[in-house]
Amino acid sequence: MGLAEESLKFHYEKRGKIEVVSTVRLTGKDELSLAYTPGVAQPCLEIQKNTDLSYDLTRRWNMCLVVTDGTAVLGLGDIGPEAGMPVMEGKCALFKEFGDVDAFPLCIKSKDADEIVRTIYLISGSFGGVNLEDISAPRCFEIEDKLKKCCDIPIFHDDQHGTAVVTLAGLVNALKVVGKSPKNVRVVISGAGAAAIGITTLLDSAGYEDITLCDRAGIIYKGREDGMNDAKHLIAAMTNPSGLRGALEDAVRGADVFIGVSSPGVMTKKMVESMAKDAVVFACANPTPEIFPEEAKAGGAAVVATGRSDYNNQINNVLVFPGVFRGAFDVRAGDINEEMKLAAAEALANIIGPAELSPEYIIPAPFDPRVRHAVASAVAEAAVRSGAARIIVAE
Amino acid sequence: MGLAEESLKFHYEKRGKIEVVSTVRLTGKDELSLAYTPGVAQPCLEIQKNTDLSYDLTRRWNMCLVVTDGTAVLGLGDIGPEAGMPVMEGKCALFKEFGDVDAFPLCIKSKDADEIVRTIYLISGSFGGVNLEDISAPRCFEIEDKLKKCCDIPIFHDDQHGTAVVTLAGLVNALKVVGKSPKNVRVVISGAGAAAIGITTLLDSAGYEDITLCDRAGIIYKGREDGMNDAKHLIAAMTNPSGLRGALEDAVRGADVFIGVSSPGVMTKKMVESMAKDAVVFACANPTPEIFPEEAKAGGAAVVATGRSDYNNQINNVLVFPGVFRGAFDVRAGDINEEMKLAAAEALANIIGPAELSPEYIIPAPFDPRVRHAVASAVAEAAVRSGAARIIVAE
Repeated sequence: MGLAEESLKFHYEKRGKIEVVSTVRLTGKDELSLAYTPGVAQPCLEIQKNTDLSYDLTRRWNMCLVVTDGTAVLGLGDIGPEAGMPVMEGKCALFKEFGDVDAFPLCIKSKDADEIVRTIYLISGSFGGVNLEDISAPRCFEIEDKLKKCCDIPIFHDDQHGTAVVTLAGLVNALKVVGKSPKNVRVVISGAGAAAIGITTLLDSAGYEDITLCDRAGIIYKGREDGMNDAKHLIAAMTNPSGLRGALEDAVRGADVFIGVSSPGVMTKKMVESMAKDAVVFACANPTPEIFPEEAKAGGAAVVATGRSDYNNQINNVLVFPGVFRGAFDVRAGDINEEMKLAAAEALANIIGPAELSPEYIIPAPFDPRVRHAVASAVAEAAVRSGAARIIVAE
Repeated sequence: MGLAEESLKFHYEKRGKIEVVSTVRLTGKDELSLAYTPGVAQPCLEIQKNTDLSYDLTRRWNMCLVVTDGTAVLGLGDIGPEAGMPVMEGKCALFKEFGDVDAFPLCIKSKDADEIVRTIYLISGSFGGVNLEDISAPRCFEIEDKLKKCCDIPIFHDDQHGTAVVTLAGLVNALKVVGKSPKNVRVVISGAGAAAIGITTLLDSAGYEDITLCDRAGIIYKGREDGMNDAKHLIAAMTNPSGLRGALEDAVRGADVFIGVSSPGVMTKKMVESMAKDAVVFACANPTPEIFPEEAKAGGAAVVATGRSDYNNQINNVLVFPGVFRGAFDVRAGDINEEMKLAAAEALANIIGPAELSPEYIIPAPFDPRVRHAVASAVAEAAVRSGAARIIVAE
């Protein structure tokens, strides 16, 4: 049986990867009057007086909304809200397993950005944070921006920011391996969707000064007119300092770092050969990467990473989102800001000490037990430092 | 420590009465690729081809949305969405405990009926059913009606229909005790809110032919103009066949049954004395009833029930909603219709056999283990009979 069939069978048997359980005993009158009527009136009245107490008297402190409109589910595209649910449930199971975060999946039957924003806003009082998931670009940027403006809880688009954090963490270590510094490397990113834009923004915050993006129409530069959108215009303004034009193969010539978050096979051995000495190649298209590790190494790449679990150096968001939300929730952060994301990447990179670090080991494995606590505590600390925290110490 | 303080302490300690857990093991690569990427693509694609499979491949088959706008929480009135959460979480805990239904609580930050309808509709694909809770009348009627039209899953407003079912069940047995029949009794209902209107509609379906409602402005009759709304106009058209006018005390004179879902103390011993012989008095205002049982009995009532746990004959919705949703979910019902509600009431009443039945025991206690299965199987059977079921046997 192939994996597809096996997974289908698994899902038919499980009939759901999450379950909502009760944390209270309800076996007699007294318990019922404490947890429900008439006793429950008192916590309600306390929250009415002070909404912040919703974090102390209900599950809100630990509850994350995982929400999609089903428009960009995995590599499957716009498959509709109901069909996105197996992925959302899986994400919620990962939140619990790796971050002890309660996460609840919702699929919204609308593709209208404003309607999606309004819907999430209207239910945001029931959650401690929102993880946006698998919403197509560029709508995802607008939805995230608007939600950040109207909601007072963290809004995190994992396809952008989770990917950005784990990519930066890998890059931090890859540059240690090749002995180059963020300020002096030229980075080329293939892709201009959610992941590419998230990565670009975070690398910029981390001090990378020369980043160039390529989409299907080639290099993105200031003044380009075809295939642009608001997000790409912003990107054009902040990247490509030497005004490169042309195709991906022009961009990568002499570049130090290639990051692929695009399509299978767009990178060739010849293109890797044209890169600078000790090139770093992250080929993260899934399941088929931009270039397979064997090819990239044959082309001279010093460090190679992919999104796949069957090669070394797997760039996997699961290293990030559970710890990020755990840390944010522990200090009741109102936002997950740049400082918190940078701290998460740094903490994730630093799990691998100098003695362990090697071209084949630049990023921890998904099941490394050190990850969660390292990321969570770095994020919580950064939240306090940057003013995003609303309580200082987790209760 | 009083109950209010004790419950507050309990809620501070618990920090939430529900929890979202994972039903899958995620401790290694293989499990991750089955439950999440890349395996999860296959169940997604199956649901894309056939949305009904969302019931087989995700938790939807057992997931109930418990949703409020916080406008009529307990007896506390409009306390806002966040403050309603302790009640919603309690309700979800009860769903799990008594019906093995997964229930998730949401509080919507809007009081606009159309916006509430739209919000629930947009997320309805993630649930097997919706339990509306503590939404003020008459908005609750409009919201329920509109949701029933646009959603293909059961919409159940517990304050109306759960209350109606348990009240009808109690009344079935009370009439057995006093030897009267539904066709021949005159019923007076104090109240014209969600509960009163739900009860009236269900009693009408059950063959009660003479029902009269009273609100704060007195008896509701065809042509009355003060304090009316759409729901009350409908009620006026279907009730009060002899065209009574006047106050509650005029209505109850000679009546066989009094059902109070209104305000503390509106019924007096003298008014009970004016009722027909072997009067039945259900005084369900909570926590202070329309009349206390001692008074009602002193006035000659043959059977008395309240909403309180410290008297016999507690009219409590928890006897109804867990079993109703369990039964509806077991046959994937698209609706919870009149037949299903009548069947639930009948099954609930019949739990008490002729030998057990007495004026002090007309309704099972909330913790009676027979209740859930009796109600669920009756509801499932009625769903099949009435065409609401979409599968015949629970898997």
